[in-house]
Amino acid sequence: MKNDVNGLLVLQSDFGLVDGAVAAMMGVALSVDENLKIYNLTHEIPPFDTFEASYRLLQAVPYWPKGTVFVSVIDPGVGSSRGSLVAKTSRGQYIVTPDNGSLSHVARVLGFEEVRTISETIGRRENTGHSHTFHGRDIYSYTGALLASGKVSFEEIGNPVDMEKIILLEDMYPVIEGDRITGMIETLDVRFGSLWTNISITDFEKLNIQPGEPVDVSIYNDKIRLYHSFVAYGLTFADVEIGEPLVYLNSMDHIGIAINQGNFARAYNIGTRKPWRVVLQKIKSH
Amino acid sequence: MKNDVNGLLVLQSDFGLVDGAVAAMMGVALSVDENLKIYNLTHEIPPFDTFEASYRLLQAVPYWPKGTVFVSVIDPGVGSSRGSLVAKTSRGQYIVTPDNGSLSHVARVLGFEEVRTISETIGRRENTGHSHTFHGRDIYSYTGALLASGKVSFEEIGNPVDMEKIILLEDMYPVIEGDRITGMIETLDVRFGSLWTNISITDFEKLNIQPGEPVDVSIYNDKIRLYHSFVAYGLTFADVEIGEPLVYLNSMDHIGIAINQGNFARAYNIGTRKPWRVVLQKIKSH
Amino acid sequence: MKNDVNGLLVLQSDFGLVDGAVAAMMGVALSVDENLKIYNLTHEIPPFDTFEASYRLLQAVPYWPKGTVFVSVIDPGVGSSRGSLVAKTSRGQYIVTPDNGSLSHVARVLGFEEVRTISETIGRRENTGHSHTFHGRDIYSYTGALLASGKVSFEEIGNPVDMEKIILLEDMYPVIEGDRITGMIETLDVRFGSLWTNISITDFEKLNIQPGEPVDVSIYNDKIRLYHSFVAYGLTFADVEIGEPLVYLNSMDHIGIAINQGNFARAYNIGTRKPWRVVLQKIKSH
Repeated sequence: MKNDVNGLLVLQSDFGLVDGAVAAMMGVALSVDENLKIYNLTHEIPPFDTFEASYRLLQAVPYWPKGTVFVSVIDPGVGSSRGSLVAKTSRGQYIVTPDNGSLSHVARVLGFEEVRTISETIGRRENTGHSHTFHGRDIYSYTGALLASGKVSFEEIGNPVDMEKIILLEDMYPVIEGDRITGMIETLDVRFGSLWTNISITDFEKLNIQPGEPVDVSIYNDKIRLYHSFVAYGLTFADVEIGEPLVYLNSMDHIGIAINQGNFARAYNIGTRKPWRVVLQKIKSH
Repeated sequence: MKNDVNGLLVLQSDFGLVDGAVAAMMGVALSVDENLKIYNLTHEIPPFDTFEASYRLLQAVPYWPKGTVFVSVIDPGVGSSRGSLVAKTSRGQYIVTPDNGSLSHVARVLGFEEVRTISETIGRRENTGHSHTFHGRDIYSYTGALLASGKVSFEEIGNPVDMEKIILLEDMYPVIEGDRITGMIETLDVRFGSLWTNISITDFEKLNIQPGEPVDVSIYNDKIRLYHSFVAYGLTFADVEIGEPLVYLNSMDHIGIAINQGNFARAYNIGTRKPWRVVLQKIKSH
Repeated sequence: MKNDVNGLLVLQSDFGLVDGAVAAMMGVALSVDENLKIYNLTHEIPPFDTFEASYRLLQAVPYWPKGTVFVSVIDPGVGSSRGSLVAKTSRGQYIVTPDNGSLSHVARVLGFEEVRTISETIGRRENTGHSHTFHGRDIYSYTGALLASGKVSFEEIGNPVDMEKIILLEDMYPVIEGDRITGMIETLDVRFGSLWTNISITDFEKLNIQPGEPVDVSIYNDKIRLYHSFVAYGLTFADVEIGEPLVYLNSMDHIGIAINQGNFARAYNIGTRKPWRVVLQKIKSH
């Protein structure tokens, strides 16, 4: 094998698993090299949602071995002139994706060693020039397989790209003012309805709130406050009773808001991203 | 290994992935040979829908390497006298399935080199004679694993079948009359709501419509016309604005009808197969 | 490899597949050993439902080869003092799970050779001591991978546990009174709506009902009888007409109640477990 790849190929898309699209991508990859070991990240990204694509990559990529190749195909601009990239993370994983913001979270948190464009002379299956709507199969999976199998090196995939020019989604960093942080709800822990914010543990620690202490939590939809309560900061769900809310450190080292064995988002009809905001505040002692 | 198999086993069913049925099938296969590499096509075929089973096989099978073994278990007649088959495609993939129409699309598009029945003395797990409701586990997955592992050759699976006698679903070929084609909507690109017709690019080219040119599109439910518009024929979604409809060549080289980043089927409440029809017509210049 | 493991790792959870949680678990396991072969049992267990977790393990575990390692993470008590176990079944498969009842069905039907606690000094990823909400990734998947790869032996995982002290869910064994059996509906064959009872074929045979003979079937919600009919006992669905109900032996060698190509549970709004009961009775000849 060329490079430091390991034969692991991990696929993400918004195609779902109800039809044969993902299986076609897998077949293309295994036709490049039958010994690849293919796994799925998720194929349930909401259609065209590059923010969610970006977030889910960050949730999974850091835990995979160096040399793993990820292929992420959330591609609202298929057939347009949007570019196609392979990024190598600071930890040595590769991500093959359209250049549409899907790399944002990994770029900001892990960082990239180098990013290259995909040359269409290398990274496109033969005889597929007439097909313009399924680049997941004809370009991205194929390119990912060439790379993961070591048949083509990272350097051979295409030319280096100026990392400043990669498309990144607007970041809404949390805002800290005194003993108060305003953040966004990036996503939900979908099956459990917990809110996952963009407030890192490092930011939260600036409020100097200790485990067991209550936090003043407000949740806004634009200017309307839809939730306000004092919620315990717990190390884990079991620190509160079943049915009680808690503020906690989630598995991505950011602040989450949940109901122990309940569904916070559903209980209060809370959504994600704009126009939603979370405000956490230290409770002043009198 | 006997045959030209490659150790790849791909499963399709209508069992869903919410219970342990598919995992039981996988366990049976890996008990035959722990080195098999098992992948899923889809397990979300609507219950008992052999048309959809047939269509999804065609969407995936052609892209997998020669020697791959597919097991497709959509089996409304489990326990009846319906036969069990292994078909070898013209490209050297194998499909293990009940004889109920699931082979129709692959038979018509790829064609088979040979088809054999599954001998119950070979293709049934020991001590499962009392179980009559889960042939996916006790016959099909087991047979697929014997074949994919090379422990049993294609010839040993059972006797050859007259290919004329395999059950095929009624085909509704598109009808071309002058500059007008009437076709069926075979399925949806489910997550995106695009209509996938049975009108091939070869048929469509007979209308002599060029990319960029509008097409006269009508969609009927039985005798009622529920959609009529002039829709651009685009090479790719990006050829029209976001929210605009287009006629395009889909990833199976057939005509699709979509809304760029929208959901055509949901927008106009369009369904698939009978009693739905699509009529495409060249727009006459005056 | 230490032990008699085979490199197969099978994951079950209530995390769903819409986000990156399961992929993070896979990445952790493959970081322990890139050669592990990871499969999914299901990740669609209803949130926190340890009964369903227990049932689905029994549906799949017996069919996998000796030495396969299962990781089941349905963990309502994450972060509490609940224990963590590795059980070795009588057939040589391993199950890694919180001690919360998830082992009940396998314990009763297959039985265990030995059960051990997971030592936190062995079975926890480095530098994850601050994370208290995703033990699926940081403890269970990691421990499963250590075991499945043979890097740590079963004996090294932790100390043996008194099998009498494992938490088991309350069992509601069927009650046989003369020619009448009262049982529970343990689960549904979800996609098809068939009722799967806890009445084994051995119990049912005590009623001395032959295939083809009708059974007196009543279904109760608490004290209210919501279904009563004479239903044919068929060997397979095809023994009755399409749309007709039948009593049959399901793939777990227990009695099921179904409509051939229909959905029994939906037809009569039948649920599972308490407060539902099924009563089967031999019809007296006059």
